[in-house]
Amino acid sequence: MPNSYLVVGGAGFIGSHFVKELLSRKKTLVRVVDNLCSGTLEHINEFKENPAFEFVKVDVENTGDLVKAMSGIETVIHLASNPDIARAVVEPRIDFVQGTALTESVAEAARISGVNTILYASGSGVYGDAGATMLSENSPVSPISTYGASKLAGEALLASYSFMFGLKCLGFRFANVVGPKQTHGVGFDFLRRLMQFPDRIEILGDGNQSKSYIHVKDVVSAVLLCEEKVQTGFDVFNVSTPDFVSVNEIADEVMAQLGLNPEKVVRTYSGGDRGWKADVPVVRLSSRKISMFGWAPMFNSREAIKNSIAEMHSELTR
Amino acid sequence: MPNSYLVVGGAGFIGSHFVKELLSRKKTLVRVVDNLCSGTLEHINEFKENPAFEFVKVDVENTGDLVKAMSGIETVIHLASNPDIARAVVEPRIDFVQGTALTESVAEAARISGVNTILYASGSGVYGDAGATMLSENSPVSPISTYGASKLAGEALLASYSFMFGLKCLGFRFANVVGPKQTHGVGFDFLRRLMQFPDRIEILGDGNQSKSYIHVKDVVSAVLLCEEKVQTGFDVFNVSTPDFVSVNEIADEVMAQLGLNPEKVVRTYSGGDRGWKADVPVVRLSSRKISMFGWAPMFNSREAIKNSIAEMHSELTR
Repeated sequence: MPNSYLVVGGAGFIGSHFVKELLSRKKTLVRVVDNLCSGTLEHINEFKENPAFEFVKVDVENTGDLVKAMSGIETVIHLASNPDIARAVVEPRIDFVQGTALTESVAEAARISGVNTILYASGSGVYGDAGATMLSENSPVSPISTYGASKLAGEALLASYSFMFGLKCLGFRFANVVGPKQTHGVGFDFLRRLMQFPDRIEILGDGNQSKSYIHVKDVVSAVLLCEEKVQTGFDVFNVSTPDFVSVNEIADEVMAQLGLNPEKVVRTYSGGDRGWKADVPVVRLSSRKISMFGWAPMFNSREAIKNSIAEMHSELTR
Repeated sequence: MPNSYLVVGGAGFIGSHFVKELLSRKKTLVRVVDNLCSGTLEHINEFKENPAFEFVKVDVENTGDLVKAMSGIETVIHLASNPDIARAVVEPRIDFVQGTALTESVAEAARISGVNTILYASGSGVYGDAGATMLSENSPVSPISTYGASKLAGEALLASYSFMFGLKCLGFRFANVVGPKQTHGVGFDFLRRLMQFPDRIEILGDGNQSKSYIHVKDVVSAVLLCEEKVQTGFDVFNVSTPDFVSVNEIADEVMAQLGLNPEKVVRTYSGGDRGWKADVPVVRLSSRKISMFGWAPMFNSREAIKNSIAEMHSELTR
């Protein structure tokens, strides 16, 4: 019997990279469900002739439809989430509706369908603002954004479903994921704006926000390796690069990509130490736990940023 | 202006004790909302002539109704929750619907209404099964029951609402709460069954499950003290007694209360080390953090159990 995966939110940026990797494997079926609200068919168009690929338009909150889509599936990769995390400032329920509630629907559908494994995109937002403390998976969790809260709520639910109903559930606390097909994020925003107005750039906060970035290919390899290495139960893994890049440095990289002289670009800052109300300005994630499985990222933060900016530039000028 | 409290789930066992304590204070308005699914009007009947007391029947998931009920309220005490935690084995969504989603509704209604403070009944279930490890508030959290998952999801959401919207939110991880008006729990079950069949007792697990019990009056004093001591932000407190009592010892106490000779009562055990699938058989909570505010329980676990059994016996034979 072939391996069978359902990628929930598979028409999104990260999802389409999972689909590509899984379809490159022999005897592997890949089904995508997505409501196409933030994901797009463009991301998965290249797979549509592949007989091992299926797409079903499903609202993830509709557990009944999800149960049907999980028929015959062994592993669910759950990536469906609100992509615009700052929107909660004006729409406070968004991360509950498009986060917490979706994960509950996925877990319940998986239980009903007899799925083996749920691989869940959590995030570093679960830790809240711990400053420059190096965070391991056992560090205290105290989200400051509703986005982080929805990720932690999802982890907690999957932990309980794993214990009570025997599902293998793994949660992944990613650094900021970048790469081809990216549809949001600071590098993406800078690139689009500088292509339009090459003489000025508006930077949220003071530009010193300092975080790790990870290439989407490294995320895919990390998740699928853990699926293979962990046999049962619930566990959670940080997935990050060892270095970090500031927002000002990302602006520099974007200007370099566009061949702009940074001296001639006027930078204005919104001020304060963070990009938006519940942004965490400094994040330090230890990937020691997953490295014990032999995982290491191919790209560090700086390389991932450079590479993703070049890719996005090529996509935007294609 | 008087102090004003809304007790969500105020017709329940714990809620009615908060109402009593708050009404004993001067210039304090107490409004109760409850859907009366597990709470009952009997619990709050004694207050109905008090001009400082109001009751409104509200479904907590109805955020609009909750907003109306929060008019003029400064502090919300949120106790609404599924009381039958083992029910999730056959009804897996219950703790999401009657837990996680209710807390989201309370938080959102409080934000809209301009409430100052949310005091939230979380639980030791957030920690999962850590064996005999003494748990502080910074210990890792990994729930094994959907009940524990719903409590952690609630804490996470309130932490983010506190940061993003400026509410003071405090979460309380209680030991097993016992006392007058108790409507469930192991002592309650043993008492009811032994009063009916005094020759036999069925014990879930092996009876060696060992946990701390806390008198409901000590819970009330702990929560209201923290409200006073913490000025802003989000925080979480264990609220427990220093000793612990096994299920077999609770059976002994119930027999002693009923004047039964324990030698003549046949004990049968369901077997295994726990009461139900996602029970945590051994729990050790450190209350060091809240003790720094000068809080100490009036009753230890054994006294709380004895006292609650005597009270329940008197209620059942009244």
